[in-house]
Amino acid sequence: MNLAIDVGNTLIKLGVFNDGNLTQKTTCSKNDFSLAIQEISKVFPIKNCIISAVSNLLEGQFEEVRNQFEVLLLNHQTPVSFVNKYATPLTLGIDRIALVSAAADQFPQKNVLIIDAGTCITYDFINSKNEYFGGAISPGISLRYKALHTFTEKLPLLKTKSPDSYLGNDTASAIHSGVVNGILYEIEGYINEYKKDYDNLTVILTGGDAHFLRDSLKNDIFANSNFLLEGLNHILEYNKH
Amino acid sequence: MNLAIDVGNTLIKLGVFNDGNLTQKTTCSKNDFSLAIQEISKVFPIKNCIISAVSNLLEGQFEEVRNQFEVLLLNHQTPVSFVNKYATPLTLGIDRIALVSAAADQFPQKNVLIIDAGTCITYDFINSKNEYFGGAISPGISLRYKALHTFTEKLPLLKTKSPDSYLGNDTASAIHSGVVNGILYEIEGYINEYKKDYDNLTVILTGGDAHFLRDSLKNDIFANSNFLLEGLNHILEYNKH
Repeated sequence: MNLAIDVGNTLIKLGVFNDGNLTQKTTCSKNDFSLAIQEISKVFPIKNCIISAVSNLLEGQFEEVRNQFEVLLLNHQTPVSFVNKYATPLTLGIDRIALVSAAADQFPQKNVLIIDAGTCITYDFINSKNEYFGGAISPGISLRYKALHTFTEKLPLLKTKSPDSYLGNDTASAIHSGVVNGILYEIEGYINEYKKDYDNLTVILTGGDAHFLRDSLKNDIFANSNFLLEGLNHILEYNKH
Repeated sequence: MNLAIDVGNTLIKLGVFNDGNLTQKTTCSKNDFSLAIQEISKVFPIKNCIISAVSNLLEGQFEEVRNQFEVLLLNHQTPVSFVNKYATPLTLGIDRIALVSAAADQFPQKNVLIIDAGTCITYDFINSKNEYFGGAISPGISLRYKALHTFTEKLPLLKTKSPDSYLGNDTASAIHSGVVNGILYEIEGYINEYKKDYDNLTVILTGGDAHFLRDSLKNDIFANSNFLLEGLNHILEYNKH
């Protein structure tokens, strides 16, 4: 059994894989990470582990994992199963490497657009020849709400809410429309643009806001909030051979 | 002759109108405002003046204007020529009142969407029955660049640049695509949504980023960077009677 660990800026996601299938998923804060590792290793006979870290673990936590499992720490030199045509591969986010690996594994010989709706919205494209080129980065839902409040004098800070209409008739509903509909139009715009150039485009929507956004999208998409963990597990398997 | 003054957060725009036509336009900082007023009153026989202020003038500057011209200070009680159906009219930005007035004046009996691309992007809609309903507010170009840098650990602060492609192959080009193409898709998305519900939609694009964005839009739009000043002049004329 494998353990895939995705260390984000605030939360850590842990996925236990058995024969390629996600058996259990846990989300915890950094403070609860050691406890989560203990629980998991009590229940599951895990041998190999992969860690993707866009921020640092607390002191001693990495060693704790290394003492229990055989650990692969994902970095820019880790062999992956796709051809990386990004102009500056050393600046490519570790999480984006994992997402593209998942696409290469699950949708071979397909044109795949991966949309990760989190703090930022990242768009990543891998073509049917298994070549990765890059994509785009824009502010995510909560970043847009925050920007409207922080960088203007008069606009309030609102919590995410699905707009009732594209036409807001007070400040709050106008902001909800501008943020949420704006993002939906952006996502549809990218999908339609890729579709013009690439036949049979497969679109994956993942990240924390994937489920909030999925039902409002007109284009057909796969919503999969485990895509990053699945990509990590694929990289781990790929490096065993 | 009329003088229309639009006091923004950092810059002040002054427009001299003769018989409804903009004769001269000046942009200055608050520090240079008194000088600009002196110059204008030397050259043009101005009698009436309208001021829209989303931020305060420096001390004494308002009095200076009032000593020279007959001044109308635009506020939420000022009579306007359209029917305001905004749910909370007292929270409607003064600048949006001026934009909608311009639409009511220049495109009577039309369905008009006004897109103001500045610090924020505001969408305002007035229908063919002269009724204003509201719209949407989203972060503008520079706000999105700023948010990506300020609210993440690793992304750089970039200057606005037109993206070469929707597919960026390094961090900078991915951000330029995400910000600028994201906004273009958002604007097209709103226009197409309004077009579904309203026949013969007229679209006005104004604000500081109007000219940067206009050539990349596929929908037919009127780009007019003087729309707000024209709206102010219309309100001034409307209130003379």
